Amino acid sequence: MSGGYETDTVTRLDTNLDDSSPEILGATMDKLLAAGALDVWFTPIHMKKNRPAVMLSVLCEVGHVEPMADIIFRETSAFGLRTEQIVRLKLERRFEKVQTEFGEVIVKLGLKNGEVVQAAPEFESCRAVSEKSGQPLRAIYEAATRSWHRK
Amino acid sequence: MSGGYETDTVTRLDTNLDDSSPEILGATMDKLLAAGALDVWFTPIHMKKNRPAVMLSVLCEVGHVEPMADIIFRETSAFGLRTEQIVRLKLERRFEKVQTEFGEVIVKLGLKNGEVVQAAPEFESCRAVSEKSGQPLRAIYEAATRSWHRK
Amino acid sequence: MSGGYETDTVTRLDTNLDDSSPEILGATMDKLLAAGALDVWFTPIHMKKNRPAVMLSVLCEVGHVEPMADIIFRETSAFGLRTEQIVRLKLERRFEKVQTEFGEVIVKLGLKNGEVVQAAPEFESCRAVSEKSGQPLRAIYEAATRSWHRK
Amino acid sequence: MSGGYETDTVTRLDTNLDDSSPEILGATMDKLLAAGALDVWFTPIHMKKNRPAVMLSVLCEVGHVEPMADIIFRETSAFGLRTEQIVRLKLERRFEKVQTEFGEVIVKLGLKNGEVVQAAPEFESCRAVSEKSGQPLRAIYEAATRSWHRK
Amino acid sequence: MSGGYETDTVTRLDTNLDDSSPEILGATMDKLLAAGALDVWFTPIHMKKNRPAVMLSVLCEVGHVEPMADIIFRETSAFGLRTEQIVRLKLERRFEKVQTEFGEVIVKLGLKNGEVVQAAPEFESCRAVSEKSGQPLRAIYEAATRSWHRK
Amino acid sequence: MSGGYETDTVTRLDTNLDDSSPEILGATMDKLLAAGALDVWFTPIHMKKNRPAVMLSVLCEVGHVEPMADIIFRETSAFGLRTEQIVRLKLERRFEKVQTEFGEVIVKLGLKNGEVVQAAPEFESCRAVSEKSGQPLRAIYEAATRSWHRK
Repeated sequence: MSGGYETDTVTRLDTNLDDSSPEILGATMDKLLAAGALDVWFTPIHMKKNRPAVMLSVLCEVGHVEPMADIIFRETSAFGLRTEQIVRLKLERRFEKVQTEFGEVIVKLGLKNGEVVQAAPEFESCRAVSEKSGQPLRAIYEAATRSWHRK
Repeated sequence: MSGGYETDTVTRLDTNLDDSSPEILGATMDKLLAAGALDVWFTPIHMKKNRPAVMLSVLCEVGHVEPMADIIFRETSAFGLRTEQIVRLKLERRFEKVQTEFGEVIVKLGLKNGEVVQAAPEFESCRAVSEKSGQPLRAIYEAATRSWHRK
Repeated sequence: MSGGYETDTVTRLDTNLDDSSPEILGATMDKLLAAGALDVWFTPIHMKKNRPAVMLSVLCEVGHVEPMADIIFRETSAFGLRTEQIVRLKLERRFEKVQTEFGEVIVKLGLKNGEVVQAAPEFESCRAVSEKSGQPLRAIYEAATRSWHRK
Repeated sequence: MSGGYETDTVTRLDTNLDDSSPEILGATMDKLLAAGALDVWFTPIHMKKNRPAVMLSVLCEVGHVEPMADIIFRETSAFGLRTEQIVRLKLERRFEKVQTEFGEVIVKLGLKNGEVVQAAPEFESCRAVSEKSGQPLRAIYEAATRSWHRK
Repeated sequence: MSGGYETDTVTRLDTNLDDSSPEILGATMDKLLAAGALDVWFTPIHMKKNRPAVMLSVLCEVGHVEPMADIIFRETSAFGLRTEQIVRLKLERRFEKVQTEFGEVIVKLGLKNGEVVQAAPEFESCRAVSEKSGQPLRAIYEAATRSWHRK
Repeated sequence: MSGGYETDTVTRLDTNLDDSSPEILGATMDKLLAAGALDVWFTPIHMKKNRPAVMLSVLCEVGHVEPMADIIFRETSAFGLRTEQIVRLKLERRFEKVQTEFGEVIVKLGLKNGEVVQAAPEFESCRAVSEKSGQPLRAIYEAATRSWHRK
């Protein structure tokens, strides 16, 4: 705990890729997430010799580096990875259901010292309701936010 | 000190944001700077599910993490932050005034082992002179650089 | 035809978005593609008031602007769209099947004046073979490229 | 009118800048907006010789190109500008006031064929209420959205 | 002429690339410039299926589209290109030599109605002087700017 | 060694630059690489006051920080640098020559526990063969990949 926030330690992996195609990288993101990565993202970077390249970043459990590295070396053109230990500060998470005029939605809550400081409609439950009801996704978000506030 | 450079240790906070709007993020940058952040910046990133997202980064004093985190959790949709300790290498800073044909400008100097290795006109003083004189901002920069070199 | 290339005219739609969240935008991309957009992409841009914003771009048939616009106005926070007529230069496309040691893959061919100038393994057929065979995606690409060259 | 949308024609100016500093460009954005630009934005681009450069884009009235060009040539390092005529598709705009528990907020409405298809709290009125009430900006947005829906 | 500015018409080519590697793209930029492209640049974009892709843009003479297209189809994975006619607004260009304490530098001048509104040290001549003198590149820029102002 | 991968520790230097021009930065990249940097890259970032800025990152040997810092402070407008120690996970590298129908190419191999898991044609040897043979660069890559697979 640090000032009311939960903490944990995770590993961030970064690698600069200048000879992988975006098609391959998009598919690699899916494989890393399926294998348990906590988060995966790409950052556009400029590398030497005018290369419009990409940095692949992965957040994973500290003991989970090797399977992540195996995927990256297997799927992409990487010859090396950079690793760093990262301390995360986190809100405590809780999930609640709210009723909206379009259907039931899950709201993700973030708590500090037991107090709710963050409330966000959960994407996949909103998408499911949006598809079923034919309403725009953001109409579902707004309806879920209104329902949460009424409680 | 490290090879003639001053050093200090600061904290970098990073968080990947895929459900905050840019309007909110622009205003959050101002709040973080007003609350004492040493630097705040955004990096465009690609997150899962085709999200054109943003990484918010904050540099702050080591003992200043909690108030920064409080602002981020309050203003944005973050549920967690990554923290790292960073060692900075710095030039010693000094400020001098120079006279230009358009008005007085502050020049920011950077020193290594007592020797000036960096001299840059200070933005806000240039802007003030630019507005008063009606000259383009870069004309003020160039005039300040010339004045500094004449000394 | 222009110098051996096929041509057609399509419409490009652009809109700068500074108050839509990336979660919403990722889902909007899928809806536009499902509704017949020829291509959809996001470009990171910097807008006023320090907003790390996104430009949404859509390529569509000339007569298809209104349904695309309807989706954008319904799903995102846009109040306006920019439209431009674009002349495309295209290779003639043909698809062929090749046998690899891992399974059958489709190769997309691009022709100019009847001559093949472009040959690229087709992503979804490579992905299917990759999943079935357990081989990395790029191993399938390379195998398909080799098979194509042997022909 | 095009399919229920209003249309107008405006000019887009683009210039690739590889020898202007970001400090100068940030100030140029303000000057262009103050002089009547409809929109101004920056796109990160990669130019030759490994230059991490910036494309400055301005949207302006068709008859307003010369004053915009004068500012760009005066403030930045540009030697040329690209100009294109752009047809915009627009929602009809209307502004309404809503009462929230934190104060009065303006909501920007977008209409197609007289029907409201877009409703967004207006940034500056939200910011004013946020500052006066001490509530986070997005709390004001959500309150304004709720108030609008109750009407 | 438009309001004191020279004008001409050129063609812009754009293509979204999601299966070319950055190594190939960097080399393609050089080939396009060597073949007479007026400008070449890359923009990072997000394409479908989580692809961190690149838009390649080329500016060329109106009658020069086919050789540019031939290079792009030959060197990259493109199957199509978008073309647009662009009207450029330009300063008249003139080159002058200035003497600095480190050597002779070329200054590129931009004129409107015969009046100098832009003066920029020319990169390659600065680089040559920087290498010969061992001074930092920006010291040469500043010296050239000072020399130009003394004239 | 970590799970079959080699490891080493290197230093990453980062600095946010909002008053250096891209022309200067492109040349600085070359100087850092010539002075022994392991890697150099730029990331587009958004800094305060609407500045479309650049983060310069350098990877270097741990004992090599000061000469890198000297170049950065001398060539760019930086007043400070952030430094972090990074543990790298690496494949063992080996180089082999392959014969293609267009000439001899070097292939870079990556090994884990003595087994080849990565094989990539080496850029400069491909470029040399491409220039000599007049074939597109990617034709050389594909030929080298085919030759490697035949072995």
